Amino acid sequence: MVDSKLYSLSDFQSIIADDLNTYANYKNEDPLFHPIHYLLRIGGKRMRPALVLLANQMLNGNLTQARPAALAVEVFHNFTLMHDDIMDQAPLRRGNETVHQKWDTNTAILSGDAMMIESYRILSESPAQHLHALLQTFNEVALGVCKGQELDMSFESRTEVHHDEYVEMIRLKTAILLGGALQMGGILAGADTATQEHLYKIGEELGLAFQLRDDYLDAFGDPEKFGKLVGGDIISDKKTYLRILLNERMSTEEKLWADSGFENDEMKVEVIKSLMVQHGIDNDAIQIAQSYIESALHHLDSIPAPENRKVELKNIILELAKRES
Amino acid sequence: MVDSKLYSLSDFQSIIADDLNTYANYKNEDPLFHPIHYLLRIGGKRMRPALVLLANQMLNGNLTQARPAALAVEVFHNFTLMHDDIMDQAPLRRGNETVHQKWDTNTAILSGDAMMIESYRILSESPAQHLHALLQTFNEVALGVCKGQELDMSFESRTEVHHDEYVEMIRLKTAILLGGALQMGGILAGADTATQEHLYKIGEELGLAFQLRDDYLDAFGDPEKFGKLVGGDIISDKKTYLRILLNERMSTEEKLWADSGFENDEMKVEVIKSLMVQHGIDNDAIQIAQSYIESALHHLDSIPAPENRKVELKNIILELAKRES
Repeated sequence: MVDSKLYSLSDFQSIIADDLNTYANYKNEDPLFHPIHYLLRIGGKRMRPALVLLANQMLNGNLTQARPAALAVEVFHNFTLMHDDIMDQAPLRRGNETVHQKWDTNTAILSGDAMMIESYRILSESPAQHLHALLQTFNEVALGVCKGQELDMSFESRTEVHHDEYVEMIRLKTAILLGGALQMGGILAGADTATQEHLYKIGEELGLAFQLRDDYLDAFGDPEKFGKLVGGDIISDKKTYLRILLNERMSTEEKLWADSGFENDEMKVEVIKSLMVQHGIDNDAIQIAQSYIESALHHLDSIPAPENRKVELKNIILELAKRES
Repeated sequence: MVDSKLYSLSDFQSIIADDLNTYANYKNEDPLFHPIHYLLRIGGKRMRPALVLLANQMLNGNLTQARPAALAVEVFHNFTLMHDDIMDQAPLRRGNETVHQKWDTNTAILSGDAMMIESYRILSESPAQHLHALLQTFNEVALGVCKGQELDMSFESRTEVHHDEYVEMIRLKTAILLGGALQMGGILAGADTATQEHLYKIGEELGLAFQLRDDYLDAFGDPEKFGKLVGGDIISDKKTYLRILLNERMSTEEKLWADSGFENDEMKVEVIKSLMVQHGIDNDAIQIAQSYIESALHHLDSIPAPENRKVELKNIILELAKRES
């Protein structure tokens, strides 16, 4: 690739859209693939495959050789959504019916299984010399994502969850796949182990920052910008990072108050938010998210690549730090 | 390996038992792995991993290098059992509670997912130079097994299934994994494409013969030897090969008779069996199974290996041809 032509994030997203479109016609006469294509078509930001391609470009890798790994990561991610939605009994995904809702649970189990196999099949189209290293990263991350889902489900039935356990859960469930995506892009560009480790950490910190900021915005976001209902997590008593911190810091009296019945949801949101503010939790959550952002930038600095090849990823990190929706 | 020390099937089964025992201690503090170890511990004939090792030995491969692929195939097979049991709502597996019954459906979905990832992780421990070819076979077979399960489920809701469709279903659901196991053993021994194809076909024909003979024994087996209740498939109106052939050959009057209510199960079994005999279905089923056996032996003959290295696999094929349980 000539340096004068560097791809932007949106260039990569177009490339990924092309590959997903092509894939959506693969075996499209086979009923096993209908739910797979349906789920891939209903959207998503395609951030994970973009990270594969961004890391690969940063280290001067060959785009064509990195495309299968990018697609594989997106297919794997969507497989986890298909099965998670069964487990969580979710009726909707990105505003559309979930697969188990539109078809049935057996179809969602089986097409999900096929989808995971497909992610390995697509990944196996990567250059043979990198296959072993790619699989090592992919397998480890894939298993970690399952472990994260297991922790997440186990938290629902527990009364007390420590905030460190929560961070470990989101690290596994969300962050490490971003780390794996960047690392795989690096592997395909022939990155050394230290660089691979920096890439992995960038994704991991980015994922943690993203999830913590998401938790923050749910309570303290600007309703005009946030898109979703502000306070939704508070109303449903979801164990977010902020709520777990609050539970850890409240006095016995405050706990009784917080757990008492409220006249209405609006009142509940107001009370819980004011308790959070009193205990400095809003600021702490933002600061911790910010520290992950700074750590990600620090790892980016340590990667031996020219600045103009780092700028797209740097912008993603900086955008995340101030995102409001 | 020195020729004087050739392993028998039971030698290989001991080796596999060792590897499974070691694996049953892997991550045994992790709840995600408890159902995996449970299912692997409740038994099975370990025929699939044995086929990997037998093919590998036949072609003078290195046993140590073939053990990960053998274990991977067994772990994958048990993953399919874990998820199939959810889909089929089966309460028992090998006389023990199924995973979704002993734990719950979510656990069985998630541990099954982890188990499939584990099969890829274990397979990835194979020598790097064979990894691409191994993955190609493994991915294709794994997807085919899902397709087989999909066909099997779709047959339940259909009134008419052609016997060719049934054969295609059992080919995908059962036979190709045996074919893939033998092929992978060959790949690891450096087999050429033609030899790999012969190995694959042996497993495929073996699987088809096994299933057809199973269908036959359910109706015409010796109750003393069969182990299971003879006539069980007839009583539950299961669409076996024999029953599908019968449906195709019966006259309209016979169909009315076969579908009428029976005084008791014994009577039903007697009537259906007598109709099968009248239409020559018992003999045809045995003959078709026999033709698969002969084809398997023919493919075995075509493999360039000394006879003493073929004898164990040949015995398995010949044993299958006369098995009564």
